[in-house]
Amino acid sequence: MPNSPAKTSDSPESRPSTVARRSFLGSAVAGAAVVGATGFTGSPVISPPGSDRPHGIDPVVSRDLARKLLLVGDKGEDLKLQYLRILIDGQLPPRAPRKKILIVGAGVAGLTAATLLKRAGHEVVVIEANGSRVGGRVKTFRDFKDKALYAEAGAMRLPDFHPLVRALVDKLGLKRQLFYNADVAPGAEPTGTIPPVTYRSFTGETWTNGPDDHTFTPPVSGGKRLIRVNGLTTTRAAYAATPKKVNSTFGAIAGTTMADALNEALKPVTVSGDANINDQIDAWATIFQKYDDYSTHRYLVEEAGWDLAKIQAAGTLENLTSRLHYSLVPTLMDHAAITPTNRYWELVGGFDVLTEALAAPLRNDIRMGRRMTRLIQSATGVRIETTAESGTEESCDGAPIQPTECFEGDYAIVTIPFSALRFCTVEPLMSYPKCRAVNELHYDSATKVLLEFKTRFWEQGPNGFTGAGCTSDSPSRNTYLPSHAPAGSPGGVVLASYSWSDDAFRWDSLTQGERVAFALDDLERLFGPVVRAEYAGVGVSQSWARARYALGEAVIFTPGQLHELHPATRTVEGRVHFAGEHTSLKPAWIEGALESAVRAFLEVHPR
Amino acid sequence: MPNSPAKTSDSPESRPSTVARRSFLGSAVAGAAVVGATGFTGSPVISPPGSDRPHGIDPVVSRDLARKLLLVGDKGEDLKLQYLRILIDGQLPPRAPRKKILIVGAGVAGLTAATLLKRAGHEVVVIEANGSRVGGRVKTFRDFKDKALYAEAGAMRLPDFHPLVRALVDKLGLKRQLFYNADVAPGAEPTGTIPPVTYRSFTGETWTNGPDDHTFTPPVSGGKRLIRVNGLTTTRAAYAATPKKVNSTFGAIAGTTMADALNEALKPVTVSGDANINDQIDAWATIFQKYDDYSTHRYLVEEAGWDLAKIQAAGTLENLTSRLHYSLVPTLMDHAAITPTNRYWELVGGFDVLTEALAAPLRNDIRMGRRMTRLIQSATGVRIETTAESGTEESCDGAPIQPTECFEGDYAIVTIPFSALRFCTVEPLMSYPKCRAVNELHYDSATKVLLEFKTRFWEQGPNGFTGAGCTSDSPSRNTYLPSHAPAGSPGGVVLASYSWSDDAFRWDSLTQGERVAFALDDLERLFGPVVRAEYAGVGVSQSWARARYALGEAVIFTPGQLHELHPATRTVEGRVHFAGEHTSLKPAWIEGALESAVRAFLEVHPR
Repeated sequence: MPNSPAKTSDSPESRPSTVARRSFLGSAVAGAAVVGATGFTGSPVISPPGSDRPHGIDPVVSRDLARKLLLVGDKGEDLKLQYLRILIDGQLPPRAPRKKILIVGAGVAGLTAATLLKRAGHEVVVIEANGSRVGGRVKTFRDFKDKALYAEAGAMRLPDFHPLVRALVDKLGLKRQLFYNADVAPGAEPTGTIPPVTYRSFTGETWTNGPDDHTFTPPVSGGKRLIRVNGLTTTRAAYAATPKKVNSTFGAIAGTTMADALNEALKPVTVSGDANINDQIDAWATIFQKYDDYSTHRYLVEEAGWDLAKIQAAGTLENLTSRLHYSLVPTLMDHAAITPTNRYWELVGGFDVLTEALAAPLRNDIRMGRRMTRLIQSATGVRIETTAESGTEESCDGAPIQPTECFEGDYAIVTIPFSALRFCTVEPLMSYPKCRAVNELHYDSATKVLLEFKTRFWEQGPNGFTGAGCTSDSPSRNTYLPSHAPAGSPGGVVLASYSWSDDAFRWDSLTQGERVAFALDDLERLFGPVVRAEYAGVGVSQSWARARYALGEAVIFTPGQLHELHPATRTVEGRVHFAGEHTSLKPAWIEGALESAVRAFLEVHPR
Repeated sequence: MPNSPAKTSDSPESRPSTVARRSFLGSAVAGAAVVGATGFTGSPVISPPGSDRPHGIDPVVSRDLARKLLLVGDKGEDLKLQYLRILIDGQLPPRAPRKKILIVGAGVAGLTAATLLKRAGHEVVVIEANGSRVGGRVKTFRDFKDKALYAEAGAMRLPDFHPLVRALVDKLGLKRQLFYNADVAPGAEPTGTIPPVTYRSFTGETWTNGPDDHTFTPPVSGGKRLIRVNGLTTTRAAYAATPKKVNSTFGAIAGTTMADALNEALKPVTVSGDANINDQIDAWATIFQKYDDYSTHRYLVEEAGWDLAKIQAAGTLENLTSRLHYSLVPTLMDHAAITPTNRYWELVGGFDVLTEALAAPLRNDIRMGRRMTRLIQSATGVRIETTAESGTEESCDGAPIQPTECFEGDYAIVTIPFSALRFCTVEPLMSYPKCRAVNELHYDSATKVLLEFKTRFWEQGPNGFTGAGCTSDSPSRNTYLPSHAPAGSPGGVVLASYSWSDDAFRWDSLTQGERVAFALDDLERLFGPVVRAEYAGVGVSQSWARARYALGEAVIFTPGQLHELHPATRTVEGRVHFAGEHTSLKPAWIEGALESAVRAFLEVHPR
């Protein structure tokens, strides 16, 4: 889901800068950059019949993917800079013929594309299946006993290294505060002025949205957050001091923390963002080419030479186990993006203030409760048939599905997940690579269980702390305490369990009530009987796999899917364009949704 | 789920005997057979700290797994023969002290273990979470408009090569008839006498439950079942005649069917059941050792040298795509088990006649609607705490979960899926390898959508047929028509969609009503407007991933899990034993559940 955590390590202090920032500079990959209409290619992925390239791992594609990852256009321009200027500074391209554009999905990508197109003079209609809210996988729970409380069902943190979303938040006048991926002292707040968004391009240019007085200092983590594995309970600080005690419960003999061990293992495939951009492209292209077919498990066994005990220890402690069979590439992309200097932000008032702010100027352009069932295009336009939706996001009321409203336009931008598009009829048939991507891109499970408490018991006593990052091998796996005391409330909502993939799959089978009961049990194991005493009686959960409009958390590649399926996600099908985080190389992040929205805007506007 | 289909090919004619029965005779693997109390070892899987064996791939473990797969005991005895004599012939081991045994789960494994223990003079209590039915993943839908109709939500076919379950069915006096994995002419029935169950052991002995007059002849498939891929609709027969036409829509240049191509690719790793048993053990041990870490995808790319187009064609046509990232081993086990001479059977009256027949003599021993929450063992006994269950298999009624009844006994046999055991507290903590298996074994999704029709329109006209095996690239993927006309009904229930893994995951996100609507759309694409005209208005679906007591279809290994996690599934934890298909090497099959039940009986009885 947007702003899922650092999948391999969530604690800034666990990734020493000497390791994480070390540059990987592989030899340059042969093959000229390919040119596409919008800075990217729509190059076919499958080898043409008769080709002798095994399995379609084409170096040209690898290189194109590296450029997409780094947002480098076909002329070597910095697309991120271009997107900041368009989305934030309002520097729109030259006027173009006015068109009517149908946009499917009112998540971040759909709302942003609609905003830009409307601003550029076009007519837009945003078609949203959900009858009760916009936002997609940005969703804030508010139905707590204490009305001052709220908690995130989806996106919950904005990384420093995502300038588009942070600048958009600032531009919309929304207030952001730090999200703590590690524990901090209760009541600890940063000092100084919240810094602006500053993006230093590889072109030498710098984009910023305000002055920086360089006074901002976040609080330091005390390492008090808990680890509870194999029957042993300790703190992150104690683990860092004597890693062997915890490691040995896995049969692992390593004398370092598993975060350090993982840094070391991934060092040969870590690309520094500080390197020359062409070297970065070369390095990523080489990695993609060599390792797209590798699972993380295979890399750790065959390249890093890890034994089973070490894989199990790191898997449990660094939240890797349930995703070991997925491609190495997503693991690496996260690993390269996260450095000790990175900070995360949350939105004061809940993340849906962002999507509500995006939707406000589009109020008359959004049609709620209409799910696309059929998309037909001709030489002159597109037509979208919808069905009236009823019920909740998890259940419908049993009314028969009937075609209702039809929408017509000149072009369409489809921003819904491919797992949802799978159930829509598209006529004529889309290209073969696009169909395969729609049918087969792997969507992951991610599930949260949130519990309301009358008081913030976790802040009490000499060992009190708040913020994120408790880890256990019980079903809950990851527990996040609130980063800040909610204004006007003595209580708080704890993200008692946040899990992914196979860890989440087990929760997905349960009912809401069961999830809450089990998460409460688990939290009691971490914090003792105070949990039950202070429980306010309200628990909610969000299974993205069971959300009927999301149909999964986000794309995560299985081995080979980066080359096989990703390039086709964004290719244009006649009059139909595609956006959404799954069409970016920042899947699951709001930043990816925004990048895709600006790209789609640039594709459609001049047509 | 029990009796899931041939995952790589579902048509007998698509697997020529010269290919499938070819023997793989690898070199013998060093390492003595290890000895365990019940014919199998409880050998630890993880390498001890300090071991230099990479990743725990221990040849001794590989060999032990091969023996488990082939049911060869530690003295070289045939355990399958032993189990037939115990379960079917009632040849129980010598009397042993009477004990009280708590059995968790009233699926096939739990009911069978309880039956044997009771027969051997012990007291049993079967604790079942479901308040409305026994049977677990054997479940028959009966709520159709036409009360003569029924259809399977779970297990739906018994392979010829599974003697235990077929002999059990015969022993219980249940009627079986052929299940057609391929299409047959409407009304076609086999001629001659239904053959008995005959098992020829590698010891030279033969077990049978009756005389065989060798008159039985099944009807021949006409190859009329449909393929609908990439916008092209054809039949299996037409595809077999000119494979290139379909293959080329995937960009594949192969001139053979993908079933044949897959046979060819897997030939080097196919073990013949006709080979000498020691050679079979050697061959499987070598395969396990070499390929446990391989996904099917990796094998096809790196060992078979397949290009992307071929993988995509075989993936779609042979139902492989959604499971490419799983271990090669399950693919091979299925592939080796399925030969052109194999037949499948179904139970007249629905599969739940089997579990009802097993449960009948245990009526007073089964406690329904009690879900285990906690299992505590001491030096003298076991105690199981349960909670009263309410609601349906997919939703609870919101009543708070409260501990209710406690059960005490001398020993326990836990037969529930590990995905369900994950949410139970076990005290003291089980062994480390067992905990990892409980926490991490990968459970798959499998989802069915079943639609009732007023008439059997699929039988009409010159192209009419019935039976299984339509394949498409639309969401439904696999469509099964009924093998036989239901007695006393002009209509029938079509298994409009049966899908697994990522294909099923997309359906799992939808509500029941949406699944029915989309499956109806898909079926209309195959058979035309008659589908909507003849629809009786009743559709049901079963998502095993969303079943709150099953928590998934069945175990399917991700790369490495066979060695890493499987051996620990069945190790004894003090007074607690384990059964269920996940503890066998026939996961998802009733036969595996039965094998595990007899094994657990033999473990507990003499204690």
